[in-house]
Amino acid sequence: MPVFQPQSDALRATRRQALWTGGGLAALVAAPGVALADTGKSEAPAKALPAYARWKNADAMIVHSANTIELRRDHFGQGSVTPTDYLYVRNNLNPPSEDIVKDPDAWVIEISGVANPMRTTLGELKRLGLTSVTMVLQCSGNGRGYFPHKPSGTQWREGAAGCVTFTGVPLKVVAEALGGVAGGAKYITGTGGETIPEGIDPKTVMVERSVPLAALDDAILAWELNGEPLPLAHGGPLRMIVPGYMGVNNIKYIKHLAFTAEQSPAKIQQSSYRFTPVGTKGNPGAPSLWAVPVNSWLTSPVQQGKPVKAGRVQLVGVAFGGAHPIKGVEVSTDGGKTWAAAQWFGADLGPFAWRNFVLAVDLKPGTYQVATRASNAQGEVQPRERVENERGYNNNSWLDRSIELVVA
Amino acid sequence: MPVFQPQSDALRATRRQALWTGGGLAALVAAPGVALADTGKSEAPAKALPAYARWKNADAMIVHSANTIELRRDHFGQGSVTPTDYLYVRNNLNPPSEDIVKDPDAWVIEISGVANPMRTTLGELKRLGLTSVTMVLQCSGNGRGYFPHKPSGTQWREGAAGCVTFTGVPLKVVAEALGGVAGGAKYITGTGGETIPEGIDPKTVMVERSVPLAALDDAILAWELNGEPLPLAHGGPLRMIVPGYMGVNNIKYIKHLAFTAEQSPAKIQQSSYRFTPVGTKGNPGAPSLWAVPVNSWLTSPVQQGKPVKAGRVQLVGVAFGGAHPIKGVEVSTDGGKTWAAAQWFGADLGPFAWRNFVLAVDLKPGTYQVATRASNAQGEVQPRERVENERGYNNNSWLDRSIELVVA
Repeated sequence: MPVFQPQSDALRATRRQALWTGGGLAALVAAPGVALADTGKSEAPAKALPAYARWKNADAMIVHSANTIELRRDHFGQGSVTPTDYLYVRNNLNPPSEDIVKDPDAWVIEISGVANPMRTTLGELKRLGLTSVTMVLQCSGNGRGYFPHKPSGTQWREGAAGCVTFTGVPLKVVAEALGGVAGGAKYITGTGGETIPEGIDPKTVMVERSVPLAALDDAILAWELNGEPLPLAHGGPLRMIVPGYMGVNNIKYIKHLAFTAEQSPAKIQQSSYRFTPVGTKGNPGAPSLWAVPVNSWLTSPVQQGKPVKAGRVQLVGVAFGGAHPIKGVEVSTDGGKTWAAAQWFGADLGPFAWRNFVLAVDLKPGTYQVATRASNAQGEVQPRERVENERGYNNNSWLDRSIELVVA
Repeated sequence: MPVFQPQSDALRATRRQALWTGGGLAALVAAPGVALADTGKSEAPAKALPAYARWKNADAMIVHSANTIELRRDHFGQGSVTPTDYLYVRNNLNPPSEDIVKDPDAWVIEISGVANPMRTTLGELKRLGLTSVTMVLQCSGNGRGYFPHKPSGTQWREGAAGCVTFTGVPLKVVAEALGGVAGGAKYITGTGGETIPEGIDPKTVMVERSVPLAALDDAILAWELNGEPLPLAHGGPLRMIVPGYMGVNNIKYIKHLAFTAEQSPAKIQQSSYRFTPVGTKGNPGAPSLWAVPVNSWLTSPVQQGKPVKAGRVQLVGVAFGGAHPIKGVEVSTDGGKTWAAAQWFGADLGPFAWRNFVLAVDLKPGTYQVATRASNAQGEVQPRERVENERGYNNNSWLDRSIELVVA
C-alpha cells in the first residue's frame, strides 16, 4: 500500500476552483465591528477574533493569533459540554474559504486503502450510519505556557481544551461499506482540505496525520458539533474524529482518508508533534503526539489574588482520563500535602469525555494552594511535575495548574 | 402556612427601581439589522427575533411572537443537548430588563416556608452546593398546532421543546441550610420576577406556580444553562428547575420561593394550565400541567414532500420518557401497521433527558408514512391519538407527528 503522494495537478486545480477560493488571507481580516480594545482580562491588549471565528464569545476567549484562540480559565462553566462558541481554535494552516460549509452535503472525500477505493460526498456518507461521541478535544500544546524554557509555539495555559459532542458515521462502517480495510494497513491517514501555498514542498506544510489502525474502533467522520452543522472553524463540513487522541490528529475539512502501511511523510507527522528532550529536534523515532494524557484542573474559583469570602467554598473543576476512562479526582488545599476525593456531578458522557467535579470545603481567612489530581482506569495518575520536552507538549502537571486562593 | 400574598408596596417599589426598569415594551422592539424577509421555511413571513433573544440562530427558529419562539423540526440536530441558540422561548409576561443579568450574583431571592426564612443573593446560593441536570424542557402547548378545534394560544408543532443542561444548587440543600421545610407544606411555589402591569389584580397575570413537594428530590435553583450563565431569555439570572415537569413550572427570574400548604392563588395556577374537556374552562379541580408525558418524533428526514433518494436511509429522532426514564422507541414506515425497534446513539444523559435514536432502513421508491412511538420505564406508551382538550395541552400523539416521506 503506497504512502500518500502529492495529488495530481488536475485534481488540485479542480479542488482549488471548486472549494479553495477566498481562504487564506481573508481569514486573517478581523470582522467589522469587533472591538480591538483591551478587555482587562489578559496582560496584553486583546486581539480581535478572526473573521471565520467572529461568532465566538469574545468575553470568553483569549485570541493569541488568527489561528490560535484559547478559552479563559474562568469561562469553562459547569455544564460538562463546552458550548461551541467557547471552544478553542487551533489551525496549522489558514482555514479554507467559508464557501466550503455552504453546501456541506456536496463536500467530496476520497477514500483509499480499502478493497473498493472511491470518491464520495458527505451526503452519501450520511446514508451509511450515525453515531455520536462526547470527548475531550485538546491541543498537544495545552499547558505549554508553564514550561520554563519557553518552547516555541502558542503559550497556552488551560484553555486549548474542551469537551464536545461530535456526530457522524463510524469510520468502521465506512470501511466495511467499501469492502474492508486493505491488507497490510497499520495506520489511518487523513489529509486536510487547506490550501497549500504555491512554490513550496507540500510535505513541509500539509496537514496530514496518521494514527494507529486501532483507532478504527472509535473514529468517526463527523459533520455535526454540539448539535449544529460543523462550522469551518472546527473543521466543517467534515472532520475525522479520533476520540482519545490529541487535537492535531482530528483532521479538519478532510479531503482524503487512507488506510496506509506507513505513516504520512508530511513534516507534521514525521518530525512535528514528536515528544523529544529539551534541545533536541523532533524525529520519526520519537513518540508521536497521539494519546491524550490524564488531566484535571480547577475552573472555579480561579481568580488568582482576588479574595474569596471565608466559609463554605465550592471547588469546581474538570477531570478526564485521556486515552482511558477517568476514574477519580482529588483536591488539595495545601499544595499537595493532603488530598480529599471530590464528587462528580452532572451526567457521565462516556469514556472520552471529561467530568465535572466539586468539593465543598470550609475555609478560614488565609492563603491556600489549591491543586487537583486525576487518575484513570488504566491506573495512570496526574504527576506533580510536567515532563520537560522541547516543544512543550503533554503538560499534565498538577502543580503547574494549582491556584493560589486568598480567603478573606 | 399562608398562601402567597401580593408583596408589600415598599418591596415592590424597591424591586421596580433596582431591577425592573427598561423591560416590557423594549423587549418587543426588534434588533436593528435583523432581517424581516421571508426565509421560505414557513408559510407566513418570518418575524424578527425580539431584542432579548436576538442572539438566537435565526435560521433555526420560527418567531411566532416576541414571547413565543419555536425550533424548526429540521434543526433539532443529533447531539443530544439542544444548543442554547436553538432552544425555544415562551414567556407568559414580557421579560424584565436585561440589566438583571449584568451582575447575576447580586440577584435577590426571598425564601419562605422553611424554619428560617430569609432573603439572600445568588452569590450566596452558589456557596451552598452544586449539581447539574440534563432534561427535556417543553412547553405544555407543544403540539397544539395539531388540534382540530384550534385552541387559543401559539400553534406550536414540535419545536417548543429542547434537551438542555441546567446547573445550580439542589433545592433540597437550600431548604436544609434554612432549617428544613416547615411543617404542613405540600407544595413548592415559585414567583417570577416579571414586571406586573399597574392597575390590574396581580393574581390575574403574575407568573407564580406550585408543584408538589415531591419535586424537591430533583429541583434545583439554576444559574447556568449549557455551561454559560443563564441568559435572560431563559430565566436568568436564576430559575427554578423542576426536572420532569412542564416548562411553565420552571419559574424564570425567580424572586420568591416558598414551601406552601396550598397552591398559588394566581390564575396561571388555578385555572390556566389545567387539562379540561373541549368547551370547558380551566378550574382548580382539573389536572394541573405538571408531568411531561412520554413522547418522541422524527427529526430527520422531515422535509415533507421533498423526495429522499432511494436506498439506505437513516431515520433519526428524539425520544423521552417525561416524568419517568425513557425505555424504548419504535419506528414505523407504514403508518403504524408494523413497528421496528430503533437504536439509541450518543450518551445517556440521565432520566430526564431525551435520547437520540436511529433506525437504518432500505427504502424503494414510493411514499411512506413514518411514525415513532416511545415508551417509558413506567410502562406508559405514546398513544396513536392526541387526547382532545380545551387548551390543546400535552399532545403526544404519534400519528400527529408522523411524516409523509417520498422516496424517489
